[in-house]
Amino acid sequence: MIRHTVAFRLKHPRGSVKEKSFLEAGKALGGIPGVELFEQLGQVSPKNDFHFGYSMEFADQTAYQAYNDHPVHVAYVRDRWIPEVEAFLEIDYAPLD
Amino acid sequence: MIRHTVAFRLKHPRGSVKEKSFLEAGKALGGIPGVELFEQLGQVSPKNDFHFGYSMEFADQTAYQAYNDHPVHVAYVRDRWIPEVEAFLEIDYAPLD
Repeated sequence: MIRHTVAFRLKHPRGSVKEKSFLEAGKALGGIPGVELFEQLGQVSPKNDFHFGYSMEFADQTAYQAYNDHPVHVAYVRDRWIPEVEAFLEIDYAPLD
Repeated sequence: MIRHTVAFRLKHPRGSVKEKSFLEAGKALGGIPGVELFEQLGQVSPKNDFHFGYSMEFADQTAYQAYNDHPVHVAYVRDRWIPEVEAFLEIDYAPLD
């Protein structure tokens, strides 16, 4: 199991129509084959500057790579993520041996 | 639901006895009242410098605060976390409205 997470902050004002549109479009990521337990979350700790998070799980590295290469993911990164995200951090977890 | 996560890197060499001891002691956090779905994880993304993560969930902010104040947590932070952790980042998630 690989749990892929990304914490991020948008360029848009909080609660804006553009913010809502970004998150709505992001739901398509959850439909990409191999994606399990897809979540869109709010980041609520005052100890960092991110406002949102996506979390999803993959059975293995092959499924993760297929997601990365999937046209829906590629398009979301190109058309929404790069232009609209101000800062982000990817953190991926796997079980300890 | 609040999912409390912390990604971190230890001062100890990877695979060392001290690393194992730190993680073993950390399991006590999972027994603190109010802690659900406690996990000790490996951080596997090359896009950040953390090696491990803890993840746990709380029903609400009251349960989270009780964990923070619990003597087992306070002692772990004082006796193990502060002396042995080189870098960390706390990220907390909650459902989006």
